[in-house]
Amino acid sequence: MDPDIEQRIEFAIDLACRAGDLALSFFSVLDDLKIESKGHQDLVSNADREVELFIRVALKKAYPDDGVVGEEHELVEGCSKHIWVIDPIDGTANFVRGIPSWCVVIALMTSGVVTAGVIHDPLNGETFSASRGGGAFLNGKPIRATAATSLAEGSVGTGFSNRVEARNMAILIDHLLSEGGVFFRNASGALMLAYVAAGRLLGYCEEHMNAWDCLAGMLLVEEAGGTVLEPDPATVVSQGTMVIAGGKSVFGQLSSLCAHAFNGR
Amino acid sequence: MDPDIEQRIEFAIDLACRAGDLALSFFSVLDDLKIESKGHQDLVSNADREVELFIRVALKKAYPDDGVVGEEHELVEGCSKHIWVIDPIDGTANFVRGIPSWCVVIALMTSGVVTAGVIHDPLNGETFSASRGGGAFLNGKPIRATAATSLAEGSVGTGFSNRVEARNMAILIDHLLSEGGVFFRNASGALMLAYVAAGRLLGYCEEHMNAWDCLAGMLLVEEAGGTVLEPDPATVVSQGTMVIAGGKSVFGQLSSLCAHAFNGR
Repeated sequence: MDPDIEQRIEFAIDLACRAGDLALSFFSVLDDLKIESKGHQDLVSNADREVELFIRVALKKAYPDDGVVGEEHELVEGCSKHIWVIDPIDGTANFVRGIPSWCVVIALMTSGVVTAGVIHDPLNGETFSASRGGGAFLNGKPIRATAATSLAEGSVGTGFSNRVEARNMAILIDHLLSEGGVFFRNASGALMLAYVAAGRLLGYCEEHMNAWDCLAGMLLVEEAGGTVLEPDPATVVSQGTMVIAGGKSVFGQLSSLCAHAFNGR
Repeated sequence: MDPDIEQRIEFAIDLACRAGDLALSFFSVLDDLKIESKGHQDLVSNADREVELFIRVALKKAYPDDGVVGEEHELVEGCSKHIWVIDPIDGTANFVRGIPSWCVVIALMTSGVVTAGVIHDPLNGETFSASRGGGAFLNGKPIRATAATSLAEGSVGTGFSNRVEARNMAILIDHLLSEGGVFFRNASGALMLAYVAAGRLLGYCEEHMNAWDCLAGMLLVEEAGGTVLEPDPATVVSQGTMVIAGGKSVFGQLSSLCAHAFNGR
């Protein structure tokens, strides 16, 4: 592996853990949190902003030439081939309400390709990490996406945002249930993608996700032997993408569900 | 409060914590778990059975005259006015797959009325407890159900089982989304009911739950100032019940969603 990337992955794992500790310090005194709405059911808190700043300061110090794209602050253009794509707290609606399902997400793109991804759940001490061609890991141990061949063998993670027609999700769920499947939604898309990589969920479907929510998780699923819908590399960072990710043998069925749901009845 | 009940609540809180520690010892070595299917998407493991036995042995020793109803073992008829209703691991499908959302549930019925309930999440160190007329607590601190007046102000927990027409859930979700709401399903009904009591979710809807999954949570919601659909006391232990639970000011809207969904379009 490119030593530049190898070094950055180790740095990202450590940084996600330190950022997670900072997020935990806000989570433990929730009553003091300052919450704003960015739109219908779309929240942000000072914890999101301060954890993102913490990550940005650390990246700027270690890799001053790299670019940074994050959920809560302005794009920083870099002059190296590397761009960091970060979500300080994925699952903000859970975080601000005290639901213990949220994570820190750090992805690395190199010359337009996702080369590393880290999803860290500080409450459960779980750090999922992957590098392109280097495998997927949970706390350093290899993980595999499911080998299931039927949607009746487990649960499928789902998510949606105010950027899509929400009722399409009801269509997806109706199709999934009619095939004997079960839906899951813990309201942290990145965490659910990590669970797909670890074989805990069969797959994950969302009509539109932003790059900072999905790139790390999609690499994790691929490196864990699963299959993902390939995003358009030219637009994924600026515009996001549809996400379909799952075990190799159920990916076709997931794609078919999404084709029904996301293009209407 | 009846001193018999008061004593039993303290015992149940301590017992749920000890049972949680035992469950954790199985969760930490998941590869050794023996899993069986009780039917479509309905799993049981040796962890469920052994944790239930642990709870039963402790209850028998402390309160030999009380009855016990649990998910995995035979009914024990008692000769006192008290019956314990227990679920050793609520969220077994999560547990066996390594998803960190599951809990231990202990409820107490006295002369046919639910008088105490404990829901313990050992992974997050959260113990929700309530006694009839005595309030609802998280780790000893009072909790309140939401004061929200609109379903657009948060998320609604949902669940279903193989005992009902699963596609009714898609109808519920479609109605909820069309009202600007959001659904949540972490696949532990008891934990979601506890989250309703703590104001983390607006409410919870499930067409049919067994007594061991819902009685503790329903008491928690009531004691936290929320509203629940009252189950039929004559049949709830043997046959289960429909569950609608939520903040006082959204309960009407939740009931209306359920009326649409659970009686067909």
